[in-house]
Amino acid sequence: MQLFWLSLLPCLYVTSLCTAEQGLEFPSFDGKDRVLHINERNYKKALKRFDMLCLLYHEPQPAHKGRQKQLQMTELVLELTAQVLEDKDIGFGMVDSQKDAKVAKKLGLEEEGSLYIFKDDRVIEFDGEFSADTLVEFLLDVLEDPVELISNPMELRAFERMEEDIRLIGYFKGEDSYYKAFQEASERFQPYIKFFATFDKTAKHLSLKMNEVNFYEPFMEEPAILPGRQLSEMEIVEFVHQHKRATLRKLRAEDMFETWEDDLDGIHIVAFAEEEDPDGYEFLEILKDVARDNTNNPELSIVWIDPDDFPLLTTYWEKTFKVNLFKPQIGVVNVTDADSVWLDMSNDEDLPTAEELEDWIEDVLSGKVNTEDDDDNDLIVNAWFLWDVFK
Amino acid sequence: MQLFWLSLLPCLYVTSLCTAEQGLEFPSFDGKDRVLHINERNYKKALKRFDMLCLLYHEPQPAHKGRQKQLQMTELVLELTAQVLEDKDIGFGMVDSQKDAKVAKKLGLEEEGSLYIFKDDRVIEFDGEFSADTLVEFLLDVLEDPVELISNPMELRAFERMEEDIRLIGYFKGEDSYYKAFQEASERFQPYIKFFATFDKTAKHLSLKMNEVNFYEPFMEEPAILPGRQLSEMEIVEFVHQHKRATLRKLRAEDMFETWEDDLDGIHIVAFAEEEDPDGYEFLEILKDVARDNTNNPELSIVWIDPDDFPLLTTYWEKTFKVNLFKPQIGVVNVTDADSVWLDMSNDEDLPTAEELEDWIEDVLSGKVNTEDDDDNDLIVNAWFLWDVFK
Repeated sequence: MQLFWLSLLPCLYVTSLCTAEQGLEFPSFDGKDRVLHINERNYKKALKRFDMLCLLYHEPQPAHKGRQKQLQMTELVLELTAQVLEDKDIGFGMVDSQKDAKVAKKLGLEEEGSLYIFKDDRVIEFDGEFSADTLVEFLLDVLEDPVELISNPMELRAFERMEEDIRLIGYFKGEDSYYKAFQEASERFQPYIKFFATFDKTAKHLSLKMNEVNFYEPFMEEPAILPGRQLSEMEIVEFVHQHKRATLRKLRAEDMFETWEDDLDGIHIVAFAEEEDPDGYEFLEILKDVARDNTNNPELSIVWIDPDDFPLLTTYWEKTFKVNLFKPQIGVVNVTDADSVWLDMSNDEDLPTAEELEDWIEDVLSGKVNTEDDDDNDLIVNAWFLWDVFK
Repeated sequence: MQLFWLSLLPCLYVTSLCTAEQGLEFPSFDGKDRVLHINERNYKKALKRFDMLCLLYHEPQPAHKGRQKQLQMTELVLELTAQVLEDKDIGFGMVDSQKDAKVAKKLGLEEEGSLYIFKDDRVIEFDGEFSADTLVEFLLDVLEDPVELISNPMELRAFERMEEDIRLIGYFKGEDSYYKAFQEASERFQPYIKFFATFDKTAKHLSLKMNEVNFYEPFMEEPAILPGRQLSEMEIVEFVHQHKRATLRKLRAEDMFETWEDDLDGIHIVAFAEEEDPDGYEFLEILKDVARDNTNNPELSIVWIDPDDFPLLTTYWEKTFKVNLFKPQIGVVNVTDADSVWLDMSNDEDLPTAEELEDWIEDVLSGKVNTEDDDDNDLIVNAWFLWDVFK
């Protein structure tokens, strides 16, 4: 177990170890090269050849052996993804940010480490957890229709239950109507933002008027409304951009780094709560109340993390933030150095009320609670200590 | 990308590729050996030294290079798990089924490929997806208290929402009561079956009498009741064993192979439905109705698979079973050869009604619908073809 490359291997799967039964075989990489090395000569052909082309824009081949292996691992994740999706007509390639700078510029690739998906005439950026699991699920979502039709009360219930997601719903005459603009807008946000449409009386349950589009922010009961009229694609796109940073948003593997980069003045208010846990569920309900009361505050965006979704990060967070994640927590994290302060909830009996939480959030937004204060306190304590010693 | 070991690498993660922000660093293996090789000399010491000891019982070192590498990968998953959980006082070890046969016998290890967890005086077998993700989450669950207390209406709502899980709830006077027997019983099923208790008036909402224990089968609204009296640990254990094979059960990463091994006469009725999808949700609701109507039929146990939970298996299933998993499906799978037949739901408009589904299930249970019939048809067709050619 001392081989050098092992020290670079992040985390991996093993296929089923020993079973007589058939039907649950995890794939293992078959060694066949499927990922293309994209350059000026082959990029146009690749774009033409596949329904969908996924290009990883990566740092130049590093001199450091460790980083070299990491790049190999990245390529391997792509290879396995390509193998699993072999029958779906998806191409995969790597673009070197130095050697292939020209191609990158032509294709509009900008962020090293991101995967760019070319489908029809649009580009989707993937900036999430780079595992085959997450990638495959993401790409399968991209292959689905960007708009789901809702045509009965049961499907409407499914729509109503998706409170964690940003979702839009529109009511149209049929396929040949302003629905077309809605559909085109949906393609620009697929699969991050979900679009639904209805052509029938299901709309009544939502009190939707003809050609009206409703935007549901996560966890909000009341939608933002784009009134029913001749909507253009750009009006819908504009409307989504205007509302898309949610007051309470769940961290998701498929866009976790993008969410994290979208900080407010260098900080995030982060809430940890396990939804499956009674305590966590209760805390989350309080948090939703607070978010609903403050949905019009553009300064406020709380990132909710369910530790169950990120088992490999749980102990890392516990160490970095010095918190116990078996219990709900809320705090402020400085994204430049991961320095943080956390609301004291050590009283085992009671979680804070919505009002107490709101007061604390106000203190965060006003700067009264911040990640630097305790650093100062340390300094002051040290100064007094020295004064005491040397006086 | 032609190195031999790569062909054996199943699926892996890559740490965040390129971000300036701090706070989301996925771990990568640091190369330090933490997994012990267990033998007759060290196993007692290992059991004493840790709060919890996890032993992988594995096949003997194989002669075949491919399988050797696979075993190394398995060890690597354990190493990364050990690293991530380093501060939790959990020991990890490997036991060779041939070289360490004596130790294995003493410890009661039986199934090659299973991980056995020793905690206090009990043993928990893990027979799920062998990935660091799943393992870490599982072990963190084992570290939690085996009984969760429910003490207010919000927590009760959290309990009521967990319809996918087998769960028990008991009403007791307090910690010093028959609760003790309940707690001891819970330890035998942790973390697969969830135990809850309440000491206060929350019980009234569930119409629980003092010392009564209720067992909720997944997706059932009415519990099975163990009446309130002086219950012993063994009575509760017996009660759980009697009810634990559910009429409708969801395939979960943490015990997927165990569930699959628990077939009925060599077959599984398998339903694929994406809960997040309106169609999938609707189908699942129909399925739940059918399960509720047939909960007393011991011959019936439907395995529900949400493809979203197993992205790497989705295309494998599509190929093996020749079905389109963008839509809901239900079929019969023979677990010895993965041969299968699927209910025809090609009519895009309507899903089957509960009655139609029930009729089909009856046909499956009576053997009228089975995986061998179409094989016969193939033979007959071939025979006619030959007859036609040679006559």
